[in-house]
Amino acid sequence: MIKVGIIGSTGYAGQELVRLLLGHKEAEIIWYGSKSYTGKQYADIFGNMFRIVDDICKDDNITELAEEADVIFTATPQGFCASVLNEELLSKTKVIDLSADYRIKDVHIYEQWYGLEHKSPQFIPEAVYGLCEWNRDAIRKARLVANPGCYTTCSILAFYPLLKEGLLRPDSIIIDAKSGTSGAGRGAKVNNLFCEVNENIKAYGVLTHRHTPEIEEQLGYAAGKDLKIIFTPHLVPMNRGILVTGYADLNGTVTDTEIRNAYEKYYGTEPFIRLLEPDVCPETRWVEGSNYVDINAKVDPRTHRVVVMSALDNIVKGAAGQAVQNMNLMFGLPETEGLMSTPMFP
Amino acid sequence: MIKVGIIGSTGYAGQELVRLLLGHKEAEIIWYGSKSYTGKQYADIFGNMFRIVDDICKDDNITELAEEADVIFTATPQGFCASVLNEELLSKTKVIDLSADYRIKDVHIYEQWYGLEHKSPQFIPEAVYGLCEWNRDAIRKARLVANPGCYTTCSILAFYPLLKEGLLRPDSIIIDAKSGTSGAGRGAKVNNLFCEVNENIKAYGVLTHRHTPEIEEQLGYAAGKDLKIIFTPHLVPMNRGILVTGYADLNGTVTDTEIRNAYEKYYGTEPFIRLLEPDVCPETRWVEGSNYVDINAKVDPRTHRVVVMSALDNIVKGAAGQAVQNMNLMFGLPETEGLMSTPMFP
Amino acid sequence: MIKVGIIGSTGYAGQELVRLLLGHKEAEIIWYGSKSYTGKQYADIFGNMFRIVDDICKDDNITELAEEADVIFTATPQGFCASVLNEELLSKTKVIDLSADYRIKDVHIYEQWYGLEHKSPQFIPEAVYGLCEWNRDAIRKARLVANPGCYTTCSILAFYPLLKEGLLRPDSIIIDAKSGTSGAGRGAKVNNLFCEVNENIKAYGVLTHRHTPEIEEQLGYAAGKDLKIIFTPHLVPMNRGILVTGYADLNGTVTDTEIRNAYEKYYGTEPFIRLLEPDVCPETRWVEGSNYVDINAKVDPRTHRVVVMSALDNIVKGAAGQAVQNMNLMFGLPETEGLMSTPMFP
Amino acid sequence: MIKVGIIGSTGYAGQELVRLLLGHKEAEIIWYGSKSYTGKQYADIFGNMFRIVDDICKDDNITELAEEADVIFTATPQGFCASVLNEELLSKTKVIDLSADYRIKDVHIYEQWYGLEHKSPQFIPEAVYGLCEWNRDAIRKARLVANPGCYTTCSILAFYPLLKEGLLRPDSIIIDAKSGTSGAGRGAKVNNLFCEVNENIKAYGVLTHRHTPEIEEQLGYAAGKDLKIIFTPHLVPMNRGILVTGYADLNGTVTDTEIRNAYEKYYGTEPFIRLLEPDVCPETRWVEGSNYVDINAKVDPRTHRVVVMSALDNIVKGAAGQAVQNMNLMFGLPETEGLMSTPMFP
Repeated sequence: MIKVGIIGSTGYAGQELVRLLLGHKEAEIIWYGSKSYTGKQYADIFGNMFRIVDDICKDDNITELAEEADVIFTATPQGFCASVLNEELLSKTKVIDLSADYRIKDVHIYEQWYGLEHKSPQFIPEAVYGLCEWNRDAIRKARLVANPGCYTTCSILAFYPLLKEGLLRPDSIIIDAKSGTSGAGRGAKVNNLFCEVNENIKAYGVLTHRHTPEIEEQLGYAAGKDLKIIFTPHLVPMNRGILVTGYADLNGTVTDTEIRNAYEKYYGTEPFIRLLEPDVCPETRWVEGSNYVDINAKVDPRTHRVVVMSALDNIVKGAAGQAVQNMNLMFGLPETEGLMSTPMFP
Repeated sequence: MIKVGIIGSTGYAGQELVRLLLGHKEAEIIWYGSKSYTGKQYADIFGNMFRIVDDICKDDNITELAEEADVIFTATPQGFCASVLNEELLSKTKVIDLSADYRIKDVHIYEQWYGLEHKSPQFIPEAVYGLCEWNRDAIRKARLVANPGCYTTCSILAFYPLLKEGLLRPDSIIIDAKSGTSGAGRGAKVNNLFCEVNENIKAYGVLTHRHTPEIEEQLGYAAGKDLKIIFTPHLVPMNRGILVTGYADLNGTVTDTEIRNAYEKYYGTEPFIRLLEPDVCPETRWVEGSNYVDINAKVDPRTHRVVVMSALDNIVKGAAGQAVQNMNLMFGLPETEGLMSTPMFP
Repeated sequence: MIKVGIIGSTGYAGQELVRLLLGHKEAEIIWYGSKSYTGKQYADIFGNMFRIVDDICKDDNITELAEEADVIFTATPQGFCASVLNEELLSKTKVIDLSADYRIKDVHIYEQWYGLEHKSPQFIPEAVYGLCEWNRDAIRKARLVANPGCYTTCSILAFYPLLKEGLLRPDSIIIDAKSGTSGAGRGAKVNNLFCEVNENIKAYGVLTHRHTPEIEEQLGYAAGKDLKIIFTPHLVPMNRGILVTGYADLNGTVTDTEIRNAYEKYYGTEPFIRLLEPDVCPETRWVEGSNYVDINAKVDPRTHRVVVMSALDNIVKGAAGQAVQNMNLMFGLPETEGLMSTPMFP
Repeated sequence: MIKVGIIGSTGYAGQELVRLLLGHKEAEIIWYGSKSYTGKQYADIFGNMFRIVDDICKDDNITELAEEADVIFTATPQGFCASVLNEELLSKTKVIDLSADYRIKDVHIYEQWYGLEHKSPQFIPEAVYGLCEWNRDAIRKARLVANPGCYTTCSILAFYPLLKEGLLRPDSIIIDAKSGTSGAGRGAKVNNLFCEVNENIKAYGVLTHRHTPEIEEQLGYAAGKDLKIIFTPHLVPMNRGILVTGYADLNGTVTDTEIRNAYEKYYGTEPFIRLLEPDVCPETRWVEGSNYVDINAKVDPRTHRVVVMSALDNIVKGAAGQAVQNMNLMFGLPETEGLMSTPMFP
């Protein structure tokens, strides 16, 4: 059994990690870390865990945890993981960081978009960007995985094959993304109260959202050159789910068939990517609770553009599920272990 | 492997049966019955099943199905199962009926509350009321199980031990129940449109709801005498979940401890019933997607009454989950097989 | 024009007061008080007010405000109004307190249920309980009005005529109430985050909710004797609305007609109380945004009880609307001024 | 008093017309038309109207209605108005058509996108496109007004000034729109059931939505040339509201100030258009129940594009409110009569 520690187990992503790992045959959670709830019964905070989890929340002493754990998940605010990571720790345990600390290779871009000083940039080169479908081999050998963001995973997976195949003009990409409210975290903020979110939709972080440079870096690898995108996130009155509606100019005449072929080429055997039937639009409800990403696209001959659509569950494939998928790869387990439950509807 | 047929697989309870059975190690679905969608791809109706279920919907020819299936679930409107059941069918296959056709022992009461003529009353005596926690032994031997209703399960499980122990005055019971909208079914009705249900709460079927006599019959067994209750259902703008808030006069001086002891006595080892810690109120979110029933109660010394509370997921323990639990019992499998997933939050 | 000051104008009730008073022909708001947002533009907090309200939030200096205002609304936490009220203030201005400070005549009961020391009990005798339909004459002459609570208004209006006419057994009353989430206030609490409230229903404050003694006192007046009730509030995933489902034993044989007659007798000409047609259940959506209370009841001959139902908008008739209705009475204006807008659906 | 008839008064737009006209000083509704509910009490269908509207629903005999009404609103399915309109009718009464029948000047485009034969194309040239902010003078003189669509109004108002001023490259426009569910109508369809819409977001009608050519025609007038856009509508789990997030390439170097100046130039004195403060994003909750359109835009120097955002209430400014605004213009009333209520939050 893999011994797992979670720092930040009482956020929405942390709690989802717990839910998924409870259904994982080869993992056992030995540390429910929570700075806010240290000393409290985990199941008192999350009543779904009553009679299932008997543990008490522990603090975030990652050094002590490293002595016991085979792998540590940090589901913590930006900057935490970078501030505690060191060589000794990495020599004892693997780390899967769900924050953004090691996602961006250029530390200046990280510091600029996040407004933080990076405390351990020396580990950035080693960190593997944990987008399993594209970095599988590197992840298998990694000590430190930077688990991608939710918007990011949804956006990159949808555009990557099309850029890789040269079907799009790289600088024309516009991503209009819509997220359920669990993506806003479990902090007590007026803006996230029920009555403020319910019966409303809004864009936020327009032209300044921190997932922008992460998407640009990864799609730049796909395109083989730097690119700039527009990324607009929106808050939707629902618990879970991200829907990406993306737009790009086609590189000359490109047909729906060529688009499908590109997806088939790279994702034909992927267990968690479902290329939908032609004309079927992804919907967040169909992936809820699961690690699936549903993708489709449609060429517009009138404007010579393509509309790209993708949907995932922001706290599964967009956070905890992908983290478990990374863990499976890092420990040589079947990649799908613990992740094959059917999406729950309604 | 148990060969399972589902008649009515495209309603909410039917689809949940599919989801649960896909995670069941000893069962395989061989018939996705749907009168409305015969001939259509199942995954075209429920996109969550895409790449998971490849089957085409079949009609509701239960006679043909009986040749192949070890067990048939009928998740159909009232009257259907009663109209097709016969001795030959029951000699070939087991039947778990999710409708009300065989739940009520007095056929006159059934016909009066449901406004239907019962087409096969001869099977009523044989049918076992599939409330596993109370009828486990009979279910194990049954050919025909009448799977309890959602409101009913939630209400009966909460009151049964207290009546059995004589702690309550039987005729004082008032049940105020609140249900998610999946309980209203998947039929195209104006009343169940998003804009009609959202931002609203209402009572309905006041003093006339069909689950009333079912609850009265079962609680009558607990009390050892006939009783009459008030049962008021309400429609809540959420997908899943039933919350029962019940009230009853105490039989003399009864303490919180005596109430707890009664629950412990009957449910202490039950896998799916969670007696919450004192002062913790059941919430539907903590059981979502699971087969759990959360129960608690609180004595009011000011009015000499008790407030009883219980929560379950109406399409799991209130329908499909309980049906699978019944199947497990009927086939000698571990009762919890396929039903132990952690509730999903948020 | 009546000069109005609002202390606590940035809570949900305070903001609704602003919305209603903007449509009132005889009132003008001269003070947008808000301790949390002092110095900020009101319309920066509530974007609906952009280009409508140009004012800056002021502090809660009620003494200064009393120099300018004809009436002050205190939409503030319990204890605030009691801590600032004095004779000089009341000699200069009228006060409508939306908190509970002056609702309960027995200060010991107030202090016990609210866990607060009352700082100005000398004004309790003078304060008029602002339930317009029952205390109209006293309100007209009042300097200090205690505006009733939301659950309270909905409960009392539904039961009062039936008790007054002696149709019910006073100690048998059980009130099962359901509230939209704006009733929980605009404070930043994890429990009221979107993802915690959405897709959930729960009871809370079971047997201990502070509105209990307020309802008991008022219904005691109706019954002509002290009484004890059970009151169970529930939180519903919707913005606005309260639904009360109440239960009581009938006093001998009572018919639906006698119940209707009692309502007609007291409410036949009330502008804001709508007695629904027989068998029509109140729904919160039909009163949304309005000052209406919809009421109906149904006798159960099987159990010799009555089910009483009522619905209102918790921040209109349950708070701000009733406060304006009180103001209208206190200033000799038509009682309905500013309050006759049609409920908004959907 | 203007005598008003409504054909289609029991849809969401029709009911909103009723709500708005009840608050209008110069109009009285004399005909509540409803094919589905002919003969039924209007207030039995919409409980909010109880004790406010006493009328019985009438059929859709527009010829008879024309004898009595000064103006007829047709809130009916596509094709109805075109099939009943004739010269005699227009000689007796004015018509404001909320359907698409007369919105598009090129009848071939209408027939192609709507899949309908137009039954009275002879009135298309006469019909005035009822976007008050741009066609005010023509509306004042019109007998027949084609009331714009909801997505359309939101999109056109946001882009029109920028195109008119030559700030954008016309063929680069992409409109990503999000709508509340009342936009999907009140028909009984499985797709619009609560459990199908709740906890979900999806795109629909991708590249084929009927509002596309309407937007293209109007924006073509602004640009002074034909243009093609991409328009992608999405369904959001909320009752009301449309949010448009639009994208376009800037025509050379354009600053935020130039964008603001363009909006100020055309909308500076508009009563219903609110240009938000810099960096404030429109949110649907702030316009709910009102006739306001909130607009803002932000230049992206990184990609040389602009993000344009606008929000309105789809059944007010997107349907019934705009229709009343048109009526006010056609009858020489103050344009804002009956339309100045403050948006309702939460």
